[in-house]
Amino acid sequence: MGKYRGASQLVLLPKTTTEVSKILSYCNTKRLAVVPQGGNTGLVGGSVPVFDEVIVGLAGMNKIISFDNVNGILTCEAGCVLENLSTFVENEGFIMPLDLGAKGSCHIGGNISTNAGGLRFIRYGSLHGNVLGLEVVLADGTILDMLTTLRKDNTGYDLKHLFIGSEGSLGVVTKISVLTPAKLSSTNVAFLSCNDYTSCQKLLLAARRSLGEILSAFEFMDHHCIDLAMQHLEGVQNPLPASPYKFYVLVETTGSDESSDKTKLEAFLLRSMEDGLVADGVIAQDISQASNFWRIREGISEASVKVGAVYKYDLSITVEKLYDIVEEMRCRLGDNAEVLGYGHLGDGNLHLNIVSSKYDDNILAQIEPFVYEWTSAQRGSISAEHGLGLMKAEKIHYSKSPEAVQLMASIKKLLDPKSILNPYKVLPQSVL
Amino acid sequence: MGKYRGASQLVLLPKTTTEVSKILSYCNTKRLAVVPQGGNTGLVGGSVPVFDEVIVGLAGMNKIISFDNVNGILTCEAGCVLENLSTFVENEGFIMPLDLGAKGSCHIGGNISTNAGGLRFIRYGSLHGNVLGLEVVLADGTILDMLTTLRKDNTGYDLKHLFIGSEGSLGVVTKISVLTPAKLSSTNVAFLSCNDYTSCQKLLLAARRSLGEILSAFEFMDHHCIDLAMQHLEGVQNPLPASPYKFYVLVETTGSDESSDKTKLEAFLLRSMEDGLVADGVIAQDISQASNFWRIREGISEASVKVGAVYKYDLSITVEKLYDIVEEMRCRLGDNAEVLGYGHLGDGNLHLNIVSSKYDDNILAQIEPFVYEWTSAQRGSISAEHGLGLMKAEKIHYSKSPEAVQLMASIKKLLDPKSILNPYKVLPQSVL
Repeated sequence: MGKYRGASQLVLLPKTTTEVSKILSYCNTKRLAVVPQGGNTGLVGGSVPVFDEVIVGLAGMNKIISFDNVNGILTCEAGCVLENLSTFVENEGFIMPLDLGAKGSCHIGGNISTNAGGLRFIRYGSLHGNVLGLEVVLADGTILDMLTTLRKDNTGYDLKHLFIGSEGSLGVVTKISVLTPAKLSSTNVAFLSCNDYTSCQKLLLAARRSLGEILSAFEFMDHHCIDLAMQHLEGVQNPLPASPYKFYVLVETTGSDESSDKTKLEAFLLRSMEDGLVADGVIAQDISQASNFWRIREGISEASVKVGAVYKYDLSITVEKLYDIVEEMRCRLGDNAEVLGYGHLGDGNLHLNIVSSKYDDNILAQIEPFVYEWTSAQRGSISAEHGLGLMKAEKIHYSKSPEAVQLMASIKKLLDPKSILNPYKVLPQSVL
Repeated sequence: MGKYRGASQLVLLPKTTTEVSKILSYCNTKRLAVVPQGGNTGLVGGSVPVFDEVIVGLAGMNKIISFDNVNGILTCEAGCVLENLSTFVENEGFIMPLDLGAKGSCHIGGNISTNAGGLRFIRYGSLHGNVLGLEVVLADGTILDMLTTLRKDNTGYDLKHLFIGSEGSLGVVTKISVLTPAKLSSTNVAFLSCNDYTSCQKLLLAARRSLGEILSAFEFMDHHCIDLAMQHLEGVQNPLPASPYKFYVLVETTGSDESSDKTKLEAFLLRSMEDGLVADGVIAQDISQASNFWRIREGISEASVKVGAVYKYDLSITVEKLYDIVEEMRCRLGDNAEVLGYGHLGDGNLHLNIVSSKYDDNILAQIEPFVYEWTSAQRGSISAEHGLGLMKAEKIHYSKSPEAVQLMASIKKLLDPKSILNPYKVLPQSVL
């Protein structure tokens, strides 16, 4: 996104785990700092060299190792591009348990190292639940083989979880095995509008109840997002007649029975309109209409960049309070900037984007630390799915207790005593 | 199950986290060993005192703290009995993401400490995916507050995973927040027979494809299990006419649409019979019939105990090879013992039970270490869902690499340097 510009004199592109091991072993001995790099699509500067770290790029390790097409278990190298994996498993009748905007260039190793969330989270949950095994190279070059392909294994501590979401600061993920759900034949998408935020919440509960096991996305965006998308995204149309709706919700179902799924969604829409939860709504009649709905939701980030500067925040807040921060921020900033609220409502994940024509320290001072303090007071997370990286390493205490941060630091020192792995990221310097 | 008899001079029953903290702080200072104890229903001796450890029983901490009935998030104390929690959340329109035979007495804290699997695993996955937050007291009395109720949080290392499945050896779990799925209105159960193991596997794949999102259990048992259940369980009937079927499969669906779910299951059964995968089958017509089907599956363990001695193994093996070990074991043991194979086929989890009229060291010598070596050679797990506890602490290397075991030991030493928490469990003494 251009916010972070790294500089490094050396990029190494290992082809095998043994090569990764040799690189780390050498760097550890010489106390040379290393940045593991996947597709470099992160939003918090987790994969950029801060000073002159050696970049270890995983792009050369992009082989699919095996696929178990009875159980849907994929084993592959860390440098595989997510979209390539998606295409591969879809041809086998399965889908990847995660999907996100950057899929065309992000690597699965990076997805795991940042614990990527994305669009299928509401249905398939976190990578902590879907990743079955990992191979990781530790700072000293030790190859840690945890590459099991078993769904259940309770023999000792489940170490792989330490590396999921640790942003390459505890080890370099080299191989992955992941459970892929069976691909379902029928997908339906509805685009709905609500007059107030309370209706959005009630609609979410109603969707959980009425759509049950076929609910696969519940995304929301306020009308500022829609206006921006209509203005800046080419060829995109508002599916609903231009009216003063305050909120828009995209509901997707995925199931195995075309006609019963559609009937369910139609009944849900009808009932929600009768109950006054939905002001207006439309169900996509074909794939191109469905793509248009998704294009609006996925294009918000792209549209906001076209305004000029974007201050991006990725927060987890209890659903009841989730929109309060958007309104508070609007009050604080007045006409100085535009405040957009959208995100994965079903997961309690708000993307708060504040856009202005150019970067301005005064605007930033009105946003931070307020946004972090507010989130902290709600016991929310200041980074729902993007990680801390360089951007928020020093801000971890807004979401984690001193005792927890201390234990994280102890674990970092245990696994990487010379602090060669991705320095300045994840943890504040004061505890290391 | 009577295999392990502990002895302790002191049982402490704290009522609050502060009391747990004071107990551990005192014991740590005095180097007194401690066994955390929940419902004491574990099968590997993880909750028994080996010599004279102080028992810290969590039964007094059994309060429900809060329930968010929009998002289905339960927060409670560790000593809550699973069945009580199930009843509570069902009244709110949700279900617990786990269910197991011992639910009437096991505690949620114990479930988390052993990473319990159980009957809903195929649908809702592992506790690593469902537990949102934990409060844990460390060996030195430090209270580690990780009791978030957020679905997504990527701020630093996700430490709670260290405590899920570590059998009380890294800390004492005192509070839990867990995501509970919405309760679905329609449940259907079918009881099927297959002529060979290959058909069971193909049937699993067909069930994943045809039943898709409503599949909620796929349990299997061989005819030896059925014979034993019929012989020893009162009031239980074989739903299928007595015939020489080799395997039986219980398929459950849970969904939100009674009629379409039943139609799907009927179509699945019909197609599977036409394809020759299923020899015979019946769908429960009412709740009492459904309970009878489940009673057979859940009663196998109870029935096997009535024979005399039971050698119990809980293995994860790739589905293709899962039944081979049962047959190999039958060849090895001949007439000396009866070998039963059953379990959660959908999760690749075999419960191998070997029954004989009384314990016999010669029989044991024929089983072990063979069963562990065989499982290890298949890269399986020697403990799918029961944990290692006292029984298998020394056997961890069959499923984990030396590097992984070494790292586990380092983490144990970091968190519990005086080794007061649940000694002799989980890890082999040689690495500590």
